[in-house]
Amino acid sequence: MRLSQYFLPLLKEEPKEAQIVSHRSMLRAGMVHQEAAGIYTWLPLGLAVLRNIEAIVVDELNKAGCVQLLMPTLQPTDLWKESGRYDALGKEMLRFNDRADRELLYSPTNEEMIVSNFRSYVKSYKQLPLNLYQVQWKFRDEVRPRFGVMRGREFLMKDAYSFNLTADDAKEEYAKMYDTYHRIFARMGLVTVAVNADSGAIGGSLSHEFQVIADTGESAVFYDAKFDEIREGKLKLSGEEMRALYAAADEQHKPGECPIPAEQLREARGIEVGHVFYLGNKYTTAMGVTVAGPDGTNVTPEMGCYGIGVSRLVGAIIEASHDSAGIIWPESVSPFDAGIINLRTGDAACDAACEKLYLALKEKGLNPLYDDTDKRAGEKFANMDLIGLPWHLTIGPRGAAEGKVEVKYRRTGEKFELSTDEVTAKIADNYRAKVTA
Amino acid sequence: MRLSQYFLPLLKEEPKEAQIVSHRSMLRAGMVHQEAAGIYTWLPLGLAVLRNIEAIVVDELNKAGCVQLLMPTLQPTDLWKESGRYDALGKEMLRFNDRADRELLYSPTNEEMIVSNFRSYVKSYKQLPLNLYQVQWKFRDEVRPRFGVMRGREFLMKDAYSFNLTADDAKEEYAKMYDTYHRIFARMGLVTVAVNADSGAIGGSLSHEFQVIADTGESAVFYDAKFDEIREGKLKLSGEEMRALYAAADEQHKPGECPIPAEQLREARGIEVGHVFYLGNKYTTAMGVTVAGPDGTNVTPEMGCYGIGVSRLVGAIIEASHDSAGIIWPESVSPFDAGIINLRTGDAACDAACEKLYLALKEKGLNPLYDDTDKRAGEKFANMDLIGLPWHLTIGPRGAAEGKVEVKYRRTGEKFELSTDEVTAKIADNYRAKVTA
Repeated sequence: MRLSQYFLPLLKEEPKEAQIVSHRSMLRAGMVHQEAAGIYTWLPLGLAVLRNIEAIVVDELNKAGCVQLLMPTLQPTDLWKESGRYDALGKEMLRFNDRADRELLYSPTNEEMIVSNFRSYVKSYKQLPLNLYQVQWKFRDEVRPRFGVMRGREFLMKDAYSFNLTADDAKEEYAKMYDTYHRIFARMGLVTVAVNADSGAIGGSLSHEFQVIADTGESAVFYDAKFDEIREGKLKLSGEEMRALYAAADEQHKPGECPIPAEQLREARGIEVGHVFYLGNKYTTAMGVTVAGPDGTNVTPEMGCYGIGVSRLVGAIIEASHDSAGIIWPESVSPFDAGIINLRTGDAACDAACEKLYLALKEKGLNPLYDDTDKRAGEKFANMDLIGLPWHLTIGPRGAAEGKVEVKYRRTGEKFELSTDEVTAKIADNYRAKVTA
Repeated sequence: MRLSQYFLPLLKEEPKEAQIVSHRSMLRAGMVHQEAAGIYTWLPLGLAVLRNIEAIVVDELNKAGCVQLLMPTLQPTDLWKESGRYDALGKEMLRFNDRADRELLYSPTNEEMIVSNFRSYVKSYKQLPLNLYQVQWKFRDEVRPRFGVMRGREFLMKDAYSFNLTADDAKEEYAKMYDTYHRIFARMGLVTVAVNADSGAIGGSLSHEFQVIADTGESAVFYDAKFDEIREGKLKLSGEEMRALYAAADEQHKPGECPIPAEQLREARGIEVGHVFYLGNKYTTAMGVTVAGPDGTNVTPEMGCYGIGVSRLVGAIIEASHDSAGIIWPESVSPFDAGIINLRTGDAACDAACEKLYLALKEKGLNPLYDDTDKRAGEKFANMDLIGLPWHLTIGPRGAAEGKVEVKYRRTGEKFELSTDEVTAKIADNYRAKVTA
């Protein structure tokens, strides 16, 4: 993409309304535009990151055997009366009437609707196991929307719902999703801590929250120091071993009963980015769902549900990966693979060298952003740091004459010179290694 | 995808509530599930088609220089009061209050919001031209939702909005979008007729509707017989030549003033799948938007807007491409590239041969659906015809012994035998030719 043909409305001033770094960065980098409290337009740069995050989630869930569908944003209230949750979500659930005065709501979560679909079509144990999921916009009418997309009202969520014949199968699926979540967040450059959590209005007897550690986190987290060693690449554990590590939210952690020694315990702030629930038969019983079991008797299926805050992750990744100059995108979610800076747009040699590099990167299947505007060099460098692309490739008159590109790796600040061929090969190899992991 | 692990709830009986073939087919083929009048869940097979259609739209718009963003489904009503359209859409616009009693609406279209975004960020002619688009769910509270996804209430629409400095530039952009639309529909196996149309509540002085010809169309269409020749592949015209062909909706067509001879005129029923509008400065004037022009004076930008009914297209393609046995998907939008039918699941040789074929197709980057269930052969054939995949690849005991696959091309019914290697190469070549067109 040539920047002159893109829509990247950067803000020069610090936005006063933003309290945390991700919200400030997203406004300054032209990623979102607020339309109402907690309701945002995703500008092109923000949408690109959102779609990259969504693609990783979809890919890993498909690999784990989940099947994607899409439920509508609006639904009738009847199902919620059937499940007994019509009042459970209170004013957070946005309700209204259509022109024929039928009561509708904007889906805040979809247990009822997925159970209703399941009930319509699944009659036999032979159709199990089943794990159905969607990535869809939800609405929760928060009293105090804040922190930009971290606690918005209209937000993008992945919600998966599993159906099994037995509690043992359901718990096995729960463990599989738990492991899948660690893989999903790791592909985004995050290591998350999974803490035992309260099941709240969703219900069920077992639940874990996945927390990204960050100073701006909304809640306290207590965890085994081994999570830090994993994050630092010093330790590698299997899914089963990770599931056995101690981690607890504030309200669960009881110092006197903590199973690990004090020197092994860490306390930090966490941002919740995912939540898994073992639901048992709460919804299937309430909504009268059975399937024919192997011996012909009716069995009430066991459920789990599994959420990931896709739009919230955009903010959480920024909280976990930035410096004073701006965002530092992990390669796997970056809106562009590299940024090309033309130090003298209009100079024939510089234009030709940048154009050649731009086309060479595209030829390799990469997606570069080429700053072909007539802005000053200093402003181009600052903007590229702000929007956080992993590789900055600069060409000025000297480089154009010598066939060289100045390469900067945004995360470390490391700089070196390479030829056009060398730089395209290096970036392509880097992506193969990092993104297809 | 192995059918045993997929979620494809086919209906054996004709659904009584469906009046037209696309609605019946989508219910029978397990593509959608109705949640409320005009509100649907997209089951996995339906969602796959929807996403393929969306991908073609996005690809062609990006190639035409449009830039994608995403506006929220809900918005405050203020902007609509500013544009003077607050009452124009009447009860079709779903309005309600949030918990703080602020008035919100579910976006039926987004001229106001895009102009508001433009106004926030675009200050100079140097930032033009700009064509911003999204693919997002909309809601229109139809009095009588019907025909399944063809006239639903919650529907997926691509809406693009262009901004130019002059009326000439805006009309050039209009022509470019007109041509892009013909390319988009052609890639979906459709040839559409563009008729002069009324601008309605959207406004502006020039507008064309893109109509897919089908007996079930909601409105009469009059057009030059050359459109039929184009559809039949007998004639190929440039964008400019196509734009010059006569076509008109019922209310525009005046027999006495028709510029083409009667023997050249055709009358048919059409399904509207797209609509382009030249808006002039209707919205930019109403909302007080100007940019600095080249000579420093303020200029009111000229707009166009361009819609495609993405979810409606799923139905329209079926109306245009089916037979009595079911749907016939064009390769470019088919939910799977081919279907594999194992005539004797459980037989070691048949299972091994099907497995080999399944993996060979996936190896080629294709996306097959493998019917590995224990259903009867007749039912497997009927189901494969119903869901309309382009290639049916059948292996029974004789084929497994001889290393042969029986190949059927769904569109023509043509059948022949090939080896596994031959069939994977043939299908891969076919896709390269048809899908990357």
